Amino acid sequence: MRQAGRHLPEYREILATRTFLEVCSTPELAAEVTLQPVRRYRVDAAILFADILLILDAMGAGLTFAKGVGPRIARPVRRRQDLENLQQPDVEATLGYVFDALREVARGLKTEGLHDTTLVGFAGTPWTVAAYLVEGGTSKYHDNLLGWSYRDPAGLRELLDRLADVTIEYLLGQIDAGAQALQLFDSWGALLDEERWQQVARPSVERILDALGDKVPTLFYIRHGAHLLNTLKQLPVNALSVDWRQPLSAVRKVVGDKPLQGNLDPGALLSTPEEVRSRVKTLLQEGQGGAHIVNLGHGVLPMTPVENASAFVRAVAELGQPFPGDD
Amino acid sequence: MRQAGRHLPEYREILATRTFLEVCSTPELAAEVTLQPVRRYRVDAAILFADILLILDAMGAGLTFAKGVGPRIARPVRRRQDLENLQQPDVEATLGYVFDALREVARGLKTEGLHDTTLVGFAGTPWTVAAYLVEGGTSKYHDNLLGWSYRDPAGLRELLDRLADVTIEYLLGQIDAGAQALQLFDSWGALLDEERWQQVARPSVERILDALGDKVPTLFYIRHGAHLLNTLKQLPVNALSVDWRQPLSAVRKVVGDKPLQGNLDPGALLSTPEEVRSRVKTLLQEGQGGAHIVNLGHGVLPMTPVENASAFVRAVAELGQPFPGDD
Repeated sequence: MRQAGRHLPEYREILATRTFLEVCSTPELAAEVTLQPVRRYRVDAAILFADILLILDAMGAGLTFAKGVGPRIARPVRRRQDLENLQQPDVEATLGYVFDALREVARGLKTEGLHDTTLVGFAGTPWTVAAYLVEGGTSKYHDNLLGWSYRDPAGLRELLDRLADVTIEYLLGQIDAGAQALQLFDSWGALLDEERWQQVARPSVERILDALGDKVPTLFYIRHGAHLLNTLKQLPVNALSVDWRQPLSAVRKVVGDKPLQGNLDPGALLSTPEEVRSRVKTLLQEGQGGAHIVNLGHGVLPMTPVENASAFVRAVAELGQPFPGDD
Repeated sequence: MRQAGRHLPEYREILATRTFLEVCSTPELAAEVTLQPVRRYRVDAAILFADILLILDAMGAGLTFAKGVGPRIARPVRRRQDLENLQQPDVEATLGYVFDALREVARGLKTEGLHDTTLVGFAGTPWTVAAYLVEGGTSKYHDNLLGWSYRDPAGLRELLDRLADVTIEYLLGQIDAGAQALQLFDSWGALLDEERWQQVARPSVERILDALGDKVPTLFYIRHGAHLLNTLKQLPVNALSVDWRQPLSAVRKVVGDKPLQGNLDPGALLSTPEEVRSRVKTLLQEGQGGAHIVNLGHGVLPMTPVENASAFVRAVAELGQPFPGDD
């Protein structure tokens, strides 16, 4: 997760003269930064360089990223009446640059002899995307979102369904463009308790998963979701991706042998290569009892030393077992 | 929690012409804003108006609160060598204003005929206070703290012990000044998995609890700590205070009949008085199986309508049972 990005000097070089959104929306640049960590670390998968909020720009909400501030939404949607301000976008016309970037990455992987690299597309869950759309950006309290969810849950679900429908088209477009797996990120799902997650967030997630069917393998990421696992294990996804707060053995106690992705603390990559290697050893033991896609539990931190990220990948390659079918 | 504060018009009036730190450090003002919600809502307890970071100012780290930005620490402590910059404060001289505020609150409660109101003091856990001291304020990644914790855990524990020692003096002073119960806030404990919480955060917490003994009842608040409950239930505290992500029945499955404090979603107070009442009903049912101190699961949100906070207190008074011994 976030393997492409600020921790890489070659990424910082590209960003030095460009904005984040400029890189996202220029297929050659998005493809280039997607490929950077694959070249450097030889990871098994390339995750597209993009942002979960791009669909909001396509829907006319207005998206900017100010340095050090994070995303800003120009026209937040805070109540049912605001829904009419949201556009039903022509996804190909408004988000085609993402599809072009995916095609460019696929080409690049071929050209550079990285045939075995799985190309992963992604989107945010409607609840998580709404966490930004409703608040107008990052938020300390999420009070607009929470208030709406308590005052008018049906209205909010309408928004989430609208977001789900655009997300479906967006993800189907990603598959068409070469995505071989898709990950849904529910970074803010854990604002909700389990019952409310089921009532408010789940329907729009299932809407997406139903539409995707089994076209490509799907992964579902939850941040800080120890209290949601009982519900999440029922989702029709191929793997659950979890953060580092619970060892995978504890997650397995709830979800059984479901394939898991994760979950080294990204903070552990701020230590030393030796420490990283020792943590990977433990991580691999913890992951036993089902398929395990080794990963961090959240995005690579911007200040991660390259040698530690490298030590992580190397340790997994040396100590882990390849997937059945891999050579 | 945070019952005194921005959601009250009488508080906003006092803050209109003063800074947050000015109110904290002026006993008459701190006492006044502590008493405001007790007068208005007739809650069972008055929790002192103060901030968990005040001890950092006493230790010479330099603390300011900029409006809309949150706390800033002028001289962060980021590695073992920085420890020498931290002062061992004369707690009475540097934090005496907090003790004076407590005495003032105690007097006020008496004067205003609120004899039955329990006066609660508090502090942050060393790990949580360090989350600000090490980062220099609020932080998105907590990378300095996490990096230190992985690279030099012994050095970080030294910092946490230093913080614990000042906290002990600070809390003993609060008892002397009239605090009848003490709450420790571990708002950032859940950055850690259970094993790391035990290794890094726990020793300094136990140091504090050992020093307090059973002088007054103690409460321990954890935010987002579903994955830490097995450890937290072993702490020698009188009650565990938890956020809203798990229903109390789920918490009880792990901690048994230990007294619990909590845990309505503060977001629920953004709904309507009717909705609040219905949620309180459920909350009281969930809390069964042990003593239950009804509360929110985190601080009152600044934008909470007074009528909803009022509905919360009223519903608890009507639907709940008094503590054994209360009349």
